[in-house]
Amino acid sequence: MTNIQPIADGHLTTPKGFLAGAVSAGIKTTPGALDLALLYSEHACATAGIFTTNLVKGAPVVLSQKRVAGGSVRAVVVNSGCSNALNGPGGYEDATEMTRLAAEHLGISEEEVAVASTGVTGVRLPMSKIRSSIGSVVLTHNGGQAFARAIMTTDTRPKEYAATVKDPRGGAYSIGGCAKGSGMIHINMATMLCYVTTDAAVESGLLAELTREVADLSLNMVTVDGDMSCSDTLLVFANGAAGLPPIARGTPEADRFREGLLAVCTHIARELARDGEGASRLLQVEVTGAASTGDARLMAKTIALSSLVKTAVAGADPNWGRIMVAAGRSGAAIEEAKARLRLQGELVFDRGQGREFSEAEMRSRLEAEEVTISLDLGLGDGAATAWGCDMTADYVHINADYRT
Amino acid sequence: MTNIQPIADGHLTTPKGFLAGAVSAGIKTTPGALDLALLYSEHACATAGIFTTNLVKGAPVVLSQKRVAGGSVRAVVVNSGCSNALNGPGGYEDATEMTRLAAEHLGISEEEVAVASTGVTGVRLPMSKIRSSIGSVVLTHNGGQAFARAIMTTDTRPKEYAATVKDPRGGAYSIGGCAKGSGMIHINMATMLCYVTTDAAVESGLLAELTREVADLSLNMVTVDGDMSCSDTLLVFANGAAGLPPIARGTPEADRFREGLLAVCTHIARELARDGEGASRLLQVEVTGAASTGDARLMAKTIALSSLVKTAVAGADPNWGRIMVAAGRSGAAIEEAKARLRLQGELVFDRGQGREFSEAEMRSRLEAEEVTISLDLGLGDGAATAWGCDMTADYVHINADYRT
Repeated sequence: MTNIQPIADGHLTTPKGFLAGAVSAGIKTTPGALDLALLYSEHACATAGIFTTNLVKGAPVVLSQKRVAGGSVRAVVVNSGCSNALNGPGGYEDATEMTRLAAEHLGISEEEVAVASTGVTGVRLPMSKIRSSIGSVVLTHNGGQAFARAIMTTDTRPKEYAATVKDPRGGAYSIGGCAKGSGMIHINMATMLCYVTTDAAVESGLLAELTREVADLSLNMVTVDGDMSCSDTLLVFANGAAGLPPIARGTPEADRFREGLLAVCTHIARELARDGEGASRLLQVEVTGAASTGDARLMAKTIALSSLVKTAVAGADPNWGRIMVAAGRSGAAIEEAKARLRLQGELVFDRGQGREFSEAEMRSRLEAEEVTISLDLGLGDGAATAWGCDMTADYVHINADYRT
Repeated sequence: MTNIQPIADGHLTTPKGFLAGAVSAGIKTTPGALDLALLYSEHACATAGIFTTNLVKGAPVVLSQKRVAGGSVRAVVVNSGCSNALNGPGGYEDATEMTRLAAEHLGISEEEVAVASTGVTGVRLPMSKIRSSIGSVVLTHNGGQAFARAIMTTDTRPKEYAATVKDPRGGAYSIGGCAKGSGMIHINMATMLCYVTTDAAVESGLLAELTREVADLSLNMVTVDGDMSCSDTLLVFANGAAGLPPIARGTPEADRFREGLLAVCTHIARELARDGEGASRLLQVEVTGAASTGDARLMAKTIALSSLVKTAVAGADPNWGRIMVAAGRSGAAIEEAKARLRLQGELVFDRGQGREFSEAEMRSRLEAEEVTISLDLGLGDGAATAWGCDMTADYVHINADYRT
């Protein structure tokens, strides 16, 4: 087996010692839709969290930040259909009550429970529905799949993944995860809820550090519409149930764990982008040769978010000038005379000038499920990859046909 | 008469001493469409220019920046259908030749001619068409209207305006202008070509200063899709043909001129936003009470550009939470507990909490040609207004209906 091996139909509770479940509490308007979910580790956990940087934060984010900082979180309760944001002090009370109700059902303390809510803003949670439904959530080792469905809003499908990681010291453990996204997704954890579990044992400081690093290379490089929600949350739980000794900083096993976490989060990031609202294809933007990593990140995200690039991709239009123009406005350094641009691997702009190519052939190559834009700036060693999706519809009728 | 009086059917060559004209050179694919235009001042001019901040600049921008800095520009030649950007040194030669051809036709030196091109990037200008057509441009005092049409690309209508300004010293002069825009319009002069003329006499240093100030309050506060072109240009020509003494810095007549210039540029900015690609209504975002003017500008533009706000406006959906969330991610200071938000004048969020309102009534009020969002942050004296438009279509089918 290779070091990191995908697990067929793997999900959030594939790692040992995690239970999850979900019910329909009637918060979503669709009858019978799952909308209230619990994730629980049977063992004490190291838990790391990353939260929205929006100055307008939902009450669940404010509360969960405190709880994760407290160091004893081992469970999370999530509802969809209402974000419990912009509700003043009452919203915070509701979020706190949600964790208390979850703690009672799980038989743990409320300090051990984080909370997230996603959906409409500015509307109070229907607490009576949550009170009457939470007790009927049945937690199972396969509950990760119901959990992934229950957190969805405009998503067309759940995003879940798990992999087995071979520990260099011998033995193996697994990492699983799920996420919801779709719209309002942008750099820095915009309406994205993502939960990752592992039965590896990871020291909590190291887990926090690796979670930040990996998020910056994966979930924080996804952009759908440039909006950033007030609810974004990534939680990573490590409970050690695989029975291997703890992973410490600066060891080969720490590098391997980082690699596994990155594989899971990158897979989920790509699935989030692929299921962006209205998307018909995944857009991958690779920037290399940038003056710095920061420049590469900024430029890759700017290109992936450009409405004009996204509409051109929707129309399978090899209008590479739009890519160069988006690159030029990103704020990162670029010199036309040094830049090389490839579309689906084909060089279309070479250090200052466009190259001849068959427009018909390029159009057919762009009609793929995945479109890759590669821009080599020829300035330095900075590199980054961002993921987005195309933008379909009337906006496209105007923009995608503009070139012809 | 009031100090600043709109002129019915006023346009670019309404001020005295300006001539313009346009022909169809066959650069646009639509047969007979005007696509090559000239503007010329019969007298020597003070001319100020503002150009795209994109690091990828079209050759005409690079050349025009030099020419305006040279201090003797009194004419401009513009084509639509091809932006002459990303064409390497050959593009710069083409731009230079365009100014030479225009200068020959006008009987002036090429140093007196600026140039602009708008349209597809990465394609060389069809110079033979320009060579054979430019001699047939007939310059007239009514030519401003043909000029305004010739510079259009995806615009559905020309944007032109003129006003008479009463000079506090006695007498009057006029200011006229036109612009093209539509898509790729964002903060900092994104594919916008805008030309303004006045028969007032304005000292060139003062003209440059006032042009910068006024652009920052008008054209630079328009955002349609967040993309910024490599071709954006604003030129302001002041030729003194009204016969009034020169306007000097720090005088009441300088204040009045600034007021007139702002009126013309604000009118044009609003028309650019109203005709954004796919737009069905104008969106005006007013931010007051910000910690600084910079904060107010940043937040107003962020809200006006938010895809989720724009789709809500298209759907006449009073989903004010999206506005607060966009405000929260702008980078400018905001405290929920101090902010007040009004939609079409009605208070919907008051210092931390939403207010009850009739959703049906608010929907009908949002079905207007203009929608105004007013956000008072309660933090300081910073204020700014931005203009944008709604976003229609499939993206809307998902987003505009999300709340209900």
